[in-house]
Amino acid sequence: MASYTIGVDFGTASGRAVVVDTADGRVVGSSVWPYANGVIDTHLPAPDDDVRLGIDWALQDADDYIATFEHAVPAALAESGVDPAEVVGVGIDFTACTMLPTTADGTPLSRIPELRREPHAWVKLWKHHAAQPEADRINAVASERGESWLPRYGGKISSEWFYAKALQILDEAPMIYRAADRLIEAADWVVWQLTGVETRNSCTAGYKAIWSRQEGFPANDYFAALDPRLADIVDAKMSRAITPIGRRAGELTDEAASWMGLRPGTAVAVANVDAHVSVPASTVTGTGRMVAVMGTSICHLLLGDRPALVEGMCGVVEDGILPGLFGFEAGQSAVGDILAWFTDALVPPRYHEAAEREGIDLHAVLEREAARLAPGESGLLALDWWNGNRSILVDADLSGLLVGATLATTAPEIYRALIESTAFGTRVIVEAFESSGVPVEEIVACGGLPERNRLLMHIFADVTGREIAVAASSQTPALGSAMFAAVAAGSAAGGYDTIEDAAARMAHLSETRYRPDRARARVYDELFGEYRALHDHFGRGGDDIMKRLRAVRTRTSTGSVPGG
Amino acid sequence: MASYTIGVDFGTASGRAVVVDTADGRVVGSSVWPYANGVIDTHLPAPDDDVRLGIDWALQDADDYIATFEHAVPAALAESGVDPAEVVGVGIDFTACTMLPTTADGTPLSRIPELRREPHAWVKLWKHHAAQPEADRINAVASERGESWLPRYGGKISSEWFYAKALQILDEAPMIYRAADRLIEAADWVVWQLTGVETRNSCTAGYKAIWSRQEGFPANDYFAALDPRLADIVDAKMSRAITPIGRRAGELTDEAASWMGLRPGTAVAVANVDAHVSVPASTVTGTGRMVAVMGTSICHLLLGDRPALVEGMCGVVEDGILPGLFGFEAGQSAVGDILAWFTDALVPPRYHEAAEREGIDLHAVLEREAARLAPGESGLLALDWWNGNRSILVDADLSGLLVGATLATTAPEIYRALIESTAFGTRVIVEAFESSGVPVEEIVACGGLPERNRLLMHIFADVTGREIAVAASSQTPALGSAMFAAVAAGSAAGGYDTIEDAAARMAHLSETRYRPDRARARVYDELFGEYRALHDHFGRGGDDIMKRLRAVRTRTSTGSVPGG
Repeated sequence: MASYTIGVDFGTASGRAVVVDTADGRVVGSSVWPYANGVIDTHLPAPDDDVRLGIDWALQDADDYIATFEHAVPAALAESGVDPAEVVGVGIDFTACTMLPTTADGTPLSRIPELRREPHAWVKLWKHHAAQPEADRINAVASERGESWLPRYGGKISSEWFYAKALQILDEAPMIYRAADRLIEAADWVVWQLTGVETRNSCTAGYKAIWSRQEGFPANDYFAALDPRLADIVDAKMSRAITPIGRRAGELTDEAASWMGLRPGTAVAVANVDAHVSVPASTVTGTGRMVAVMGTSICHLLLGDRPALVEGMCGVVEDGILPGLFGFEAGQSAVGDILAWFTDALVPPRYHEAAEREGIDLHAVLEREAARLAPGESGLLALDWWNGNRSILVDADLSGLLVGATLATTAPEIYRALIESTAFGTRVIVEAFESSGVPVEEIVACGGLPERNRLLMHIFADVTGREIAVAASSQTPALGSAMFAAVAAGSAAGGYDTIEDAAARMAHLSETRYRPDRARARVYDELFGEYRALHDHFGRGGDDIMKRLRAVRTRTSTGSVPGG
Repeated sequence: MASYTIGVDFGTASGRAVVVDTADGRVVGSSVWPYANGVIDTHLPAPDDDVRLGIDWALQDADDYIATFEHAVPAALAESGVDPAEVVGVGIDFTACTMLPTTADGTPLSRIPELRREPHAWVKLWKHHAAQPEADRINAVASERGESWLPRYGGKISSEWFYAKALQILDEAPMIYRAADRLIEAADWVVWQLTGVETRNSCTAGYKAIWSRQEGFPANDYFAALDPRLADIVDAKMSRAITPIGRRAGELTDEAASWMGLRPGTAVAVANVDAHVSVPASTVTGTGRMVAVMGTSICHLLLGDRPALVEGMCGVVEDGILPGLFGFEAGQSAVGDILAWFTDALVPPRYHEAAEREGIDLHAVLEREAARLAPGESGLLALDWWNGNRSILVDADLSGLLVGATLATTAPEIYRALIESTAFGTRVIVEAFESSGVPVEEIVACGGLPERNRLLMHIFADVTGREIAVAASSQTPALGSAMFAAVAAGSAAGGYDTIEDAAARMAHLSETRYRPDRARARVYDELFGEYRALHDHFGRGGDDIMKRLRAVRTRTSTGSVPGG
């Protein structure tokens, strides 16, 4: 008998459900549910839309996640024609750190009438960036105390992560902090809603909440040093019981089964994160093959059989990506975003007109023109720091730089230089891993960019000097969740006993492979030397002009200096 | 009785004649004559249009200059209604170094049927850049021999100047070099055509042919070291008799008078250069007030009462601008050109649409948007080296740099940063003069930019911390030529005895004055510190990446590395 699993990928604007054949990973049904309240970043939803949010806020409505189960899963099932009796497991992945305060029974505080006008009662989305002061405190205190966990996170905790968000609640809405019996990742919260049991996964705990299998969470006295009221946060509002990725969290409750039209008792996998769950969905289950999730930004994921401290990585977590291995994560803050910015902000009409005339995308026109250039031919070089630098410098105050411009410089030349700069940025990360003893023999790309920009993929291969394979699925997170669902079901139920087994059957590579061209790679080796020198000069204190310009910007944007 | 003079300004694409009232400098008639053969840069004019020119060539046809006298002057006279009997003098100014080979009687070699198919027989226009190998030789040999004149030219002779062009003729067409009895600036050649007497002016001799009143020309053995055949170039093909600016060259011949409809015997002034003749036309006849001729590039002109060596200036010449004073020249290779490049290459459709909707120029839209920003608000800083750096680094291999870009950076922000960078470039020049003991108390602007871009003028005032006055005339070169014509005529004939007297009556400032704003100037002081640090790092050997990128560009543009 055929068996199927369901993967649900909770993205930033919508949730996607897929029905997957466990035999070969084929997606037989799929549906997307756009969140009714989407990203809440200016004011709360009606009827409380008079409550305005501060700068850099980004919230979500937990009920949109439940609605995703209610709408996307039945629609995907209907499209597939699969009998719910053949569905053996459900898995989910989520953006992270996306977290919320709930009562002891899991009720989101934003659902409570007396609390819902308080913004801190709502889900804080991963890109809620208003907790920077708290992140600064977290880092300052940790570095002062010489906390042993800090190097595991590249020396700096992001404002996006769990404790920064929790501390912001405490700072700004202590009443909400007190009312919150639980502070929990949305990923774990939806699994709780499916199974009726709170189960916390090792991936978000490790990468976002500073947990490690060896050392657990930071000590209570560290939290007390941040704020005495925070001392017991782990025991009072979180849990020290962390379940490794790949386990079964439980079974569907009657209620949750009814949302989706599935059978109660269906296996539910431990929650996962969208980028991390893409690793086995890209066929990677061992060391040496780096997965690059390429989209607006790039997330680099790599497995190792022993811990290592790699400069500027986002984190290393045992069981963080696959059970039994150390999962390394690094990242570039902006890649597709830089190209999108350039295309919107600085491309003159003639290219827009060409795109319209030929009925193709503006990026495609720029890509075609840029592809006519040889490496180095434009004379341009850029530092890809338009949104700061995550790895390996961990410095959000860095900014973009372009050098080599002449009166003959064209938009496609700059477009290409920007692509090259992001490839150089990835090469810095690859070299950081290798110099710390974590080998990177091949790159496996997934995400939206590989499908959209072949020139970019060629340049990444030429610059890194590594072959780049491409995941066959264009929805690796949802597929990966379905794969973990199959492991939660187990082989006896038509699934698999390990994620390695699941990957061997359900994950595939596309036929496209990008191989470095030797002549181009030689030129890029030379240009990378230039990139590296600029990178170190502007990124490691040789010249802190980027920080000073940012400080001037902050100061002069206040209106104290007249315009003109 | 009223008296008038005529000024003729020979530009790159056309010649302009003005009829000016000597009493007050009022322009009473004006006419422009576009050269029939314009800039000859791809092939010779018909019937020899099968003769193609090399890269970086730029020639002109000497007969176009005669045609300018024949057409523009009568038209300007007609417009003025002035009786030719009331015209007491003629003066001209020219682009430089624009030079040509002629026979002993002044016939341009390009007029000789057997020679006209040889490109080297034609006028070499100032922007003929094909003599770079010769300029390199000129510099190498001079620096090897420790020639005392080299520091007067900022340590480097340009490929645009006289001997580079002469040496290219010798290198590539020795037969033309031999056939040339005279090698002469076009400025002096047209005065020769007007008066029948070869008269060489101190301005082009000093700034373009390495002449000084104290030391004369470089020694014959220097020329011999360049090429033995060049040893006698000054005595054989030029002249050691150099006439100071401000003198009378002679009187109109019957033939020249008939071209223009003027009286034979009318006084003719010694030739001048367009930028330099603008100095008295901008009311400047003494020390302390720098004239900035602002257009595609900027030429900075300053008077001093003693010689000084200023880093990276284009030249210092006694009698070079005004008789009895030392004339200093410095320059920025691109200013308006950078803004024109940006506007053409990198401005997205929405600003074009706004310009069209409002019926204004695209620059005006960008200027308006950029004017809304406070200094420093964009967080951007640029090095204005899109066309290399003339003063003070004298390095054509430098290139443009932009730092501080983010995903929110807009086209108007970059437009403003580019303007600011050119203002910083002028401040570096101002400070170089001052630190060498040549004071700059005020700036007087002329040229096309001051009329077109008020924001730019404000920024130049704020950045340099100096008041900027603006010449009233929008045609300072032609006015200046008419002023020197009045001096050639002399007071007895209704002109003036000195250029100072002429300037006091004929030159005026506009009512517009740009005064530094104290608050903005403070921010710019800080940003200038950043500019200066980048300037020194990338321009003085801290990091020669710009040169290396240019070398890679040259190498990879040959097609040896595959595109893509």
